[in-house]
Amino acid sequence: MRFLVKAEVSLKRGHFDPEGDVASKSLRDLGFSVGTVRVSKAYTIEVDARDPTEAKALAEEMCRKLLANPTKDDFMVEVLVIEGRTA
Amino acid sequence: MRFLVKAEVSLKRGHFDPEGDVASKSLRDLGFSVGTVRVSKAYTIEVDARDPTEAKALAEEMCRKLLANPTKDDFMVEVLVIEGRTA
Repeated sequence: MRFLVKAEVSLKRGHFDPEGDVASKSLRDLGFSVGTVRVSKAYTIEVDARDPTEAKALAEEMCRKLLANPTKDDFMVEVLVIEGRTA
Repeated sequence: MRFLVKAEVSLKRGHFDPEGDVASKSLRDLGFSVGTVRVSKAYTIEVDARDPTEAKALAEEMCRKLLANPTKDDFMVEVLVIEGRTA
């Protein structure tokens, strides 16, 4: 079965996020009253798996092996869609 | 009041996503059975607003004015946290 999973990779708490800092400053320059901004990356992945549990485990493995940098990133995985149905 | 909002900016459907294509190829090279991969960017923003409705409206305005490129990006906004409480 084919699943749609989402893996969100974000900087660990405490890590400096220059892109977020620039976004925060730019938003304030535009007049928005904002504090900290953090930027993360989300991968929406079509993956073949037997069931949602396996799809989630595979996406976590993808994060560990490729998508996330273990020294500086956290990741969170969710199963979005199972062959056209919302999970 | 201070809110935590999340603005996810993704390429409109049909737009070429080279970063996603590279991720897909790399995952297949590692042995994962994956199809299309799409990459989007998520901004987690602390924003001052009167209520969740205003917080969401402000984040949408931030996307229109700065975070999203109207010619190629879609965006989706959700309110995550209201002063320490989950929305």
